[in-house]
Amino acid sequence: MKATFLYGPGDIRIEDTLRPSIQSATDAVVKVTLACICGSDLWDYNESEELEVGRPRGHEFVGVVEAVGVDVKKFKVGDFVVAPFVSSCGVCDFCLKGQHTSCRKIGFFGHGGGAGGQSEAVLVTNADGTLVTLPVEVDSPLVPSLLTLSDVMCTGHHAAVTARVQAGETAVVIGDGAVGLCAVIAAKRMGASRIILMGRHEGRTALGREFGATDVVSERDEEGIRKVLELTNGDGAPSVLECVGTASAMEMALGVVRDYGTIGRVGAAQYETIPFGFGPLMRNITISGGVAPARAYIEELMPDILSGKINPGKVFDLTVGLDEVPAGYEAMSKRTALKVLVKP
Amino acid sequence: MKATFLYGPGDIRIEDTLRPSIQSATDAVVKVTLACICGSDLWDYNESEELEVGRPRGHEFVGVVEAVGVDVKKFKVGDFVVAPFVSSCGVCDFCLKGQHTSCRKIGFFGHGGGAGGQSEAVLVTNADGTLVTLPVEVDSPLVPSLLTLSDVMCTGHHAAVTARVQAGETAVVIGDGAVGLCAVIAAKRMGASRIILMGRHEGRTALGREFGATDVVSERDEEGIRKVLELTNGDGAPSVLECVGTASAMEMALGVVRDYGTIGRVGAAQYETIPFGFGPLMRNITISGGVAPARAYIEELMPDILSGKINPGKVFDLTVGLDEVPAGYEAMSKRTALKVLVKP
Repeated sequence: MKATFLYGPGDIRIEDTLRPSIQSATDAVVKVTLACICGSDLWDYNESEELEVGRPRGHEFVGVVEAVGVDVKKFKVGDFVVAPFVSSCGVCDFCLKGQHTSCRKIGFFGHGGGAGGQSEAVLVTNADGTLVTLPVEVDSPLVPSLLTLSDVMCTGHHAAVTARVQAGETAVVIGDGAVGLCAVIAAKRMGASRIILMGRHEGRTALGREFGATDVVSERDEEGIRKVLELTNGDGAPSVLECVGTASAMEMALGVVRDYGTIGRVGAAQYETIPFGFGPLMRNITISGGVAPARAYIEELMPDILSGKINPGKVFDLTVGLDEVPAGYEAMSKRTALKVLVKP
Repeated sequence: MKATFLYGPGDIRIEDTLRPSIQSATDAVVKVTLACICGSDLWDYNESEELEVGRPRGHEFVGVVEAVGVDVKKFKVGDFVVAPFVSSCGVCDFCLKGQHTSCRKIGFFGHGGGAGGQSEAVLVTNADGTLVTLPVEVDSPLVPSLLTLSDVMCTGHHAAVTARVQAGETAVVIGDGAVGLCAVIAAKRMGASRIILMGRHEGRTALGREFGATDVVSERDEEGIRKVLELTNGDGAPSVLECVGTASAMEMALGVVRDYGTIGRVGAAQYETIPFGFGPLMRNITISGGVAPARAYIEELMPDILSGKINPGKVFDLTVGLDEVPAGYEAMSKRTALKVLVKP
């Protein structure tokens, strides 16, 4: 079957590889019907060294179960499922607290060989703890939105949860990428009455407004902070959703957060340290967030997608086949596409 | 009357000054019956420049109201009261959320001249929003514990609250100073089943055990982290109460906190930045805390002092008169005293 591999900076290849098979009694194999490319896939794409052995790519997918191990109880061949971006056992102390990214048996798709989600089929370890049934047909128009439950919508939701978005209060979302736009959806869903989106790409901020942003601030750094403070009576916002990951974005977050406010960060940190000394201590600022426990959020968010209340699938603006995945990476890297669907 | 002033490093003087009088209709003047010296008083004591005008000292006191402005409704001459370490209006948006240290009319005792708490009498602005009545006699043996509500017990409690101490879970308290020991009391009060106190001063850690610490780790830095991890199955603790404020203490906090755990920091930050990049992001670590809104906690904590359930006044191990305050500072600075009472 075909699968996607990274071999170095900008070097994405579609190669033939063995179709995965059950390795353990708790495994499932999922035939991928729709996948996508993640912003985090671009880190390696832009910065990897040259690799002799290709690195399987893709951790966001939905598909149909095509094989299950003998201990898999919740799923059978033919089930339509979504997978969060890591596999987890569902029964350890971390999983039971909804902290699945720290599962004691955490697994990564394609790690240790095989294929990731940007392929025809994926091996899912700990299937019972990981997969969630999708109660729609494989070709439902809701599927792109349901696919976002694998990562990007849950990551935006994690930003909102960890920033402690409160009904009737103001939230600032930093970043107009797919995560930032999903964070807008999440902040609105949690009842924020005012959502200030900091981003400068017009098409993206327009989608942000459609998702619920009430204000857009296109300026950055000191000027961006000044604008947000102007919009918030000089106080800043009690909740700031940091969806970029640069040092500059974190400094903006610290600049626009209200005293006693919380920053929920989900942008992959490209900084080593945060300026978080005496001043923020006196202001009682909290920094929370992290890599999202997507598995913990899927059941909560799915009904709002099924009902049409939220439509995170609108972040997809390009669809490619497997052979065109390299072009999809290039489009996201050059920002000609916001987020790319992959249809095997 | 006599009051305490700082003039430079190690230079504390008791001087005669005018007794305060009502300046505004919302003021009260409180005759100090018992005060104390704060760890934070030592910052200036150790690091101040030489000052031409002495800086009034002291922000922890209890006393008897001796004058009130015409708009003070809740207090009358003769009332026995405690003041939190800053004054606050009690009615602004921050105060109404229990965020009194960001009050829009915040006031500091002795700032702008006059006398601080280590004196015979103090001017309290916004008396109705600030003071709390003490339902005991001025000479009750409970008074030292009630005095801790002005700062140190509330600060320890803030560490526990912001570290999200959970009943039945483990908490690590970093620091065996008076704040750390009050943090142990607070963690126990909130139901932590295991409290690991990191400190190396035997008399203090013994008091920590009396307050509820189940384990003491005297090692520091990497060795201290290793010991705490040994005690916690390699995982660390979900709640870490950082009561020191050095870079080393914050690094220990990051080393002993469990994935998805929270650090509640109340130690005055002597660092500019925190190493809080990709690793802690992947572990979903939260850093919260700050300067404690003592006013928000006084009514909650006072009943447990009145009932004898908690005895934070045990942190005091030396009592001095006003004339001996310089010796009190020296004793705390040299660590021959843990925390010093001042009896005017």
